[in-house]
Amino acid sequence: MSMRARNDRSFIAGTIAIGSELLVGGRTDSNSLFITDVLGAIGVEVRFKSIVGDNRSDIERVLKTACNRAGIVIVTGGLGPTVDDRTREAIAAVTGARLARRKEALEGMKARLAQWGRIPNKGQLRQALIPSQAIVLPNPVGSAPGFSLVWRGTHIIALPGVPSEMRAMVEQSVIPYLISQLKPSKSRGRQPLTRLVFHTWGMSEADVDAKLTGLIKKSLPVALGLLASPTGVLVSLTTEAGRALKEDALISLAEEVRTRLGEWIYAEGQDTMEEVVGRLLHGQRRTVAVAESCTGGLIAYRLTQVPGSSSYLDRAVVCYSNQAKMELLGVPEHLLREHGAVSREVAEAMAKGMRERTGVSVALSVTGIAGPGGATETKPVGLVYIGLDGGRDDMMTREFRFHGDRSVIRQRAAQAALDMLRRWLMNKGNL
Amino acid sequence: MSMRARNDRSFIAGTIAIGSELLVGGRTDSNSLFITDVLGAIGVEVRFKSIVGDNRSDIERVLKTACNRAGIVIVTGGLGPTVDDRTREAIAAVTGARLARRKEALEGMKARLAQWGRIPNKGQLRQALIPSQAIVLPNPVGSAPGFSLVWRGTHIIALPGVPSEMRAMVEQSVIPYLISQLKPSKSRGRQPLTRLVFHTWGMSEADVDAKLTGLIKKSLPVALGLLASPTGVLVSLTTEAGRALKEDALISLAEEVRTRLGEWIYAEGQDTMEEVVGRLLHGQRRTVAVAESCTGGLIAYRLTQVPGSSSYLDRAVVCYSNQAKMELLGVPEHLLREHGAVSREVAEAMAKGMRERTGVSVALSVTGIAGPGGATETKPVGLVYIGLDGGRDDMMTREFRFHGDRSVIRQRAAQAALDMLRRWLMNKGNL
Repeated sequence: MSMRARNDRSFIAGTIAIGSELLVGGRTDSNSLFITDVLGAIGVEVRFKSIVGDNRSDIERVLKTACNRAGIVIVTGGLGPTVDDRTREAIAAVTGARLARRKEALEGMKARLAQWGRIPNKGQLRQALIPSQAIVLPNPVGSAPGFSLVWRGTHIIALPGVPSEMRAMVEQSVIPYLISQLKPSKSRGRQPLTRLVFHTWGMSEADVDAKLTGLIKKSLPVALGLLASPTGVLVSLTTEAGRALKEDALISLAEEVRTRLGEWIYAEGQDTMEEVVGRLLHGQRRTVAVAESCTGGLIAYRLTQVPGSSSYLDRAVVCYSNQAKMELLGVPEHLLREHGAVSREVAEAMAKGMRERTGVSVALSVTGIAGPGGATETKPVGLVYIGLDGGRDDMMTREFRFHGDRSVIRQRAAQAALDMLRRWLMNKGNL
Repeated sequence: MSMRARNDRSFIAGTIAIGSELLVGGRTDSNSLFITDVLGAIGVEVRFKSIVGDNRSDIERVLKTACNRAGIVIVTGGLGPTVDDRTREAIAAVTGARLARRKEALEGMKARLAQWGRIPNKGQLRQALIPSQAIVLPNPVGSAPGFSLVWRGTHIIALPGVPSEMRAMVEQSVIPYLISQLKPSKSRGRQPLTRLVFHTWGMSEADVDAKLTGLIKKSLPVALGLLASPTGVLVSLTTEAGRALKEDALISLAEEVRTRLGEWIYAEGQDTMEEVVGRLLHGQRRTVAVAESCTGGLIAYRLTQVPGSSSYLDRAVVCYSNQAKMELLGVPEHLLREHGAVSREVAEAMAKGMRERTGVSVALSVTGIAGPGGATETKPVGLVYIGLDGGRDDMMTREFRFHGDRSVIRQRAAQAALDMLRRWLMNKGNL
């Protein structure tokens, strides 16, 4: 039974991102990630993703393949005003539809442009061309409307590639439309796909894998996923489409993951390290200041990504030069001379100087060699010291030896520093 | 003739990225961008990209489709030690090959692990399973070897998904292998695809498009691409695969783009804004210091992404609080009181204070409202002031009103600040 449900085409989706820039490196396709999430919530599984350039016959081939595989195909991009926007023509050609300027598409666009004090130019008028029999999907954010049509049992939905426009249209039009179309069959309801995500830092993928051995019994319709990146190993539990799983079975699996991985888990779901750290700081009414050398501002940038971070981040300084370390943080010159800027002693002095000068609850410092230059015989690229001063002799320093290129080493160093702060705050919270 | 060459399968490639995490949002597939670049350099055009989860039958379907379309299919991911690594099995099943542990694969892996003081565990031994008739591709960076085989005239090449391993293997094994296999046919040599990229800041996509109207004559085998993002509009000129274009024709097209877009182009090719600014600073032996409020460290982080940036970046401070603005930059309290922290006056005082306290050649400052909170009746989210102090009364401030969410506004503000610095340095260089 499970295979039948799993292969019911109506609940399988594919995405196609259109644009030569996505092929050759200007950008990555992030739209499909959002689409996967929101379709998952209504029980539709995105199983295939494709990216194709602006070549019309290529778009047509990819579209045909996608329609063979999936009951729902969401195409993003290629609806703009320029001549390399060929999605309309390709969909019309594959489905045998005729393109014609549609009144409701034109009016929506005119109304939108009027808000901006403009009238449609020739290119924008092309955007009102819609395949016959398609439904026009209004664009509440930009000028290009989308559309949807059914061809050989597959819903083809075309949306602009601009993320803010695509998102608004998915939420306001596509999801309500799909819910109305996807009538639950006798064999299955619209079982939402459940996906739990745990973010870990500090363990290798192999070590995480070993800790999770035997977690999921063969009979359970749950897949375990692991993914390593410079900011840690992501662990996911995903239920299979169309297969029922009792809620408490998933809850107890999640509990088991938490027990096995413990404090190595720094966040769950959509949470980020900086949000978790921010909540701890805010909840404990503590303030923080950061003194960065090799991370060059990355820690401050990440902390300030969180709205409201001004309530706990007092300041940050990026002090590359010895001069700046002395002037801004009061690092004693003899420490720099005797131990070098990349040393446990200087990391400690940076954190201490920062805390004393600002009066924050806790100061964090990073000094290291991000490379490619700067290494010495005793100090290789990747050597990083992190210091944390919580006041009243509550001082820690840690040495790390990271692998990777300059960018990866900086990412790892920032993550390690934020994780040290997180663990320190968690311990404080427990006191 | 052009269509035949364009559709010669041997020079058309597809990539398949394998991993459920790539489908559901953990990560985006950046490997394919690198592959597109290096294959382009040997005249092979990546025309299709697919992403598929860990489901074996899905991998098989996508692989079959890719082999129908392309003469070269590069599969990344799914070669690791865990049970959700199913690329080996899928390729063996599609091609009818048998999987067997291969001596050279095992030995390479053992040698690599021995360097790290380890021996292969059970999962890692699976990594030595290679389809019969495949060539083993050694992995000089990690433990999982890759392999390549020919099926129905298509070269199928399987590589690990870890970017550093994939890159090393592409450069050391895949490219030499493909060059040996792709014998120039009578009708065409290995014509490298040429792609020129221009990065602009400060103009809308529609304005860039208008400026480039009529640039490319219909008969020229060159495609013009435009892509808007928070850091500007990217313009690309790409030659069509297998179609010859005289070098001077492309050179004169590029010249025309430069003439039409002028100083709006801040970088070309792989260059980034921070590299361009860094080269100008380095070449003019000037130093810079940065005072950031709403960008929260992003400008410093970007400047320090460039190796060697310590020679021109003296320091940066992130001063969210008024207290920090006064202490670190000497911003007079009455300015903060009278005009507010987000004002032209405070941006100017921040830049001036930074330059005077550090003695750098030029100081840059940013203050603004990134949102979602913090707006007032007269100061909306997106209002940003940027200041630049080059000493001796060489002071500029500019007001911007950016659209977008917190993250986009911060990206735009950082880009605008770096571009102001770039234009200032360019004018200085011309004096």
